[in-house]
Amino acid sequence: MSSHIYKKIEVVGSSQTSIEEAVNNAVAKAAESVRNMRWVEIVETRCHIEEQKVVYWQVTVKIGFTLDEN
Amino acid sequence: MSSHIYKKIEVVGSSQTSIEEAVNNAVAKAAESVRNMRWVEIVETRCHIEEQKVVYWQVTVKIGFTLDEN
Amino acid sequence: MSSHIYKKIEVVGSSQTSIEEAVNNAVAKAAESVRNMRWVEIVETRCHIEEQKVVYWQVTVKIGFTLDEN
Amino acid sequence: MSSHIYKKIEVVGSSQTSIEEAVNNAVAKAAESVRNMRWVEIVETRCHIEEQKVVYWQVTVKIGFTLDEN
Amino acid sequence: MSSHIYKKIEVVGSSQTSIEEAVNNAVAKAAESVRNMRWVEIVETRCHIEEQKVVYWQVTVKIGFTLDEN
Amino acid sequence: MSSHIYKKIEVVGSSQTSIEEAVNNAVAKAAESVRNMRWVEIVETRCHIEEQKVVYWQVTVKIGFTLDEN
Amino acid sequence: MSSHIYKKIEVVGSSQTSIEEAVNNAVAKAAESVRNMRWVEIVETRCHIEEQKVVYWQVTVKIGFTLDEN
Amino acid sequence: MSSHIYKKIEVVGSSQTSIEEAVNNAVAKAAESVRNMRWVEIVETRCHIEEQKVVYWQVTVKIGFTLDEN
Amino acid sequence: MSSHIYKKIEVVGSSQTSIEEAVNNAVAKAAESVRNMRWVEIVETRCHIEEQKVVYWQVTVKIGFTLDEN
Amino acid sequence: MSSHIYKKIEVVGSSQTSIEEAVNNAVAKAAESVRNMRWVEIVETRCHIEEQKVVYWQVTVKIGFTLDEN
Amino acid sequence: MSSHIYKKIEVVGSSQTSIEEAVNNAVAKAAESVRNMRWVEIVETRCHIEEQKVVYWQVTVKIGFTLDEN
Amino acid sequence: MSSHIYKKIEVVGSSQTSIEEAVNNAVAKAAESVRNMRWVEIVETRCHIEEQKVVYWQVTVKIGFTLDEN
Repeated sequence: MSSHIYKKIEVVGSSQTSIEEAVNNAVAKAAESVRNMRWVEIVETRCHIEEQKVVYWQVTVKIGFTLDEN
Repeated sequence: MSSHIYKKIEVVGSSQTSIEEAVNNAVAKAAESVRNMRWVEIVETRCHIEEQKVVYWQVTVKIGFTLDEN
Repeated sequence: MSSHIYKKIEVVGSSQTSIEEAVNNAVAKAAESVRNMRWVEIVETRCHIEEQKVVYWQVTVKIGFTLDEN
Repeated sequence: MSSHIYKKIEVVGSSQTSIEEAVNNAVAKAAESVRNMRWVEIVETRCHIEEQKVVYWQVTVKIGFTLDEN
Repeated sequence: MSSHIYKKIEVVGSSQTSIEEAVNNAVAKAAESVRNMRWVEIVETRCHIEEQKVVYWQVTVKIGFTLDEN
Repeated sequence: MSSHIYKKIEVVGSSQTSIEEAVNNAVAKAAESVRNMRWVEIVETRCHIEEQKVVYWQVTVKIGFTLDEN
Repeated sequence: MSSHIYKKIEVVGSSQTSIEEAVNNAVAKAAESVRNMRWVEIVETRCHIEEQKVVYWQVTVKIGFTLDEN
Repeated sequence: MSSHIYKKIEVVGSSQTSIEEAVNNAVAKAAESVRNMRWVEIVETRCHIEEQKVVYWQVTVKIGFTLDEN
Repeated sequence: MSSHIYKKIEVVGSSQTSIEEAVNNAVAKAAESVRNMRWVEIVETRCHIEEQKVVYWQVTVKIGFTLDEN
Repeated sequence: MSSHIYKKIEVVGSSQTSIEEAVNNAVAKAAESVRNMRWVEIVETRCHIEEQKVVYWQVTVKIGFTLDEN
Repeated sequence: MSSHIYKKIEVVGSSQTSIEEAVNNAVAKAAESVRNMRWVEIVETRCHIEEQKVVYWQVTVKIGFTLDEN
Repeated sequence: MSSHIYKKIEVVGSSQTSIEEAVNNAVAKAAESVRNMRWVEIVETRCHIEEQKVVYWQVTVKIGFTLDEN
């Protein structure tokens, strides 16, 4: 078994619905440019408010992906 | 464009359903006394347990609002 | 009124659906061996990714329960 | 049972005697303007020194109180 | 000498020029509603970017003021 | 001299009197099920308030004890 | 209104003059390869000393930029 | 695929030789009472000094193990 | 009024009685070699246990003192 | 002397042998795509366990490299 | 090339003008008793307020200097 | 048994070989000026890179030593 090397990037996803969807949106966007994603670490959760209501969930995540696969 | 000044207050919202609803309840309550809310930072999430089950989601948030608008 | 003593254990629950369900699963599992649970503190939220999508929400929690009841 | 909303304020109490009295002084002062206080979180403890001796214990606390009771 | 009680509020000041001016703007705005301010703790510094340049320095501060003076 | 292995458990003690007594109560309760305790780390101090006064000091501690002695 | 996705990169800017210029230098350098920058978070400030004087201000920043615009 | 539940315990291992051996000693001791261990998180590293030299490496680790396997 | 420069040292005081006495003992010992002490910041509180009871309160403090007075 | 700008990336290296080799593996892998590396900051150390023994040391590092050299 | 050993001291500098000048004042004062200073880490920034205005910038820094040079 | 008072100093040791040797080098250097050292806390580990390889392990430690012995 070989030893793996991973890289982590930091992405902020947003959603009008839920924290989970904001994370999924971040992962979906990252999937356009990064392959072999393995895990997510949730770093921070914020909301944008308009007219006294939460309109966006904004979740900062770190996404880990394998560097050594082909 | 003028430079804005914001104030942040710390509120704990609760919900029997979800983290998101607990945050929305905190914002709705704050809206009774604070105008021009702009953002939420989630600080801490706890649950209250009764009879071995989660019965409340308790989410501590900081809410930022504009001080310089009329 | 007596003074209570609590113990806290650290558990990681997982779910394919949501952060809330991952916490509920952790509490349900802990209920098999611990009585008189009182509260949960969410410590960390991570996700496991397969084929470029989140497949598990993994939530680390601390669960507090009463030591002095019978 | 209804879901509660709490607000937290940050206060620094001081005492010439002990950490506990400094906290009690902070709570007593807050009681003049805030009702329905529920809990205290000790955030930071410092001392003021004069003539090479501790003369004040200064304890920063967060005090949580219920917003939704009448 | 009496023992003092302080309260701390959290304010975000901004400036197009410098971190120091952003703090001064936060203090000046707070001075409209709070008396007997004693100290500032800088909590966080962020910038707003437009057209690839920093246009605002945004500094979150905690401001401590005396509760027990008249 | 042999190399020791320790385990740490997290306990919350409470007292109506002082932080020190809350810690002592936590240690006394832990002594019922754990032998060879060696040290305490104070993690967090909170108070429970009733009728606008502190009625309980609640101190979260980690207690370290030796695993390898008989 | 669409939901945005942001990426954050970590850059260290330096300046012989001030913290603000170090941040501006970091942003100017990042502008060569990243478009649609939106905000800066100051993470850490250090100085390099030579001959007993500060000769460089070194500021670590996180820069957030939009991933979903064209 | 089922959703797993893990528990984490905190152990301090020691060694006269290296940080790695201190971790291995902690894991070996935990293996006497815990099955299905999956990962280690290193929390803190300290050394005990005697006669002006390091004589023990003391490493605090959290060890995660599966609760739901048989 | 001149601008002051302070130095901070880190000391661990101990006491068989209380946290406050441990701090006072640390300050008294520091007074033997440092003049013009101004404040204490409590960093960490631990206890030493013997025969299943707390026998020492060990409090790590930072002590600030003026460098520029004579 | 010119003012330098650095970028930091976050990489997880692994090794079956030691923490140091895990770091070296992370640096060696990063060297395939990044030039002018200057320093490493160790952020987190974890281990993967199989059959009750540590089989991989996994070290998360931040690697700083110069952006402005050619 | 020899391996260096550094010591770090913690100093609080102040200035009526700016954060940078407060740091420079701390370094200048430290230069009276410490040789071979190499770097500064800014730990905390506070301000002293009088008559509702910032009158002093107080910056806590750690200063690293070489122990092994002559 | 008397109550002890300790002082802690912060030192950065380096080594071309390992984290452990960097700590040992820091302790050996401190031993030239400090007596009665008791423990080490590892605070931070960094590496210096030259020509794309780690050439120095730089470990920041706090060293505790007894103040009250003769």
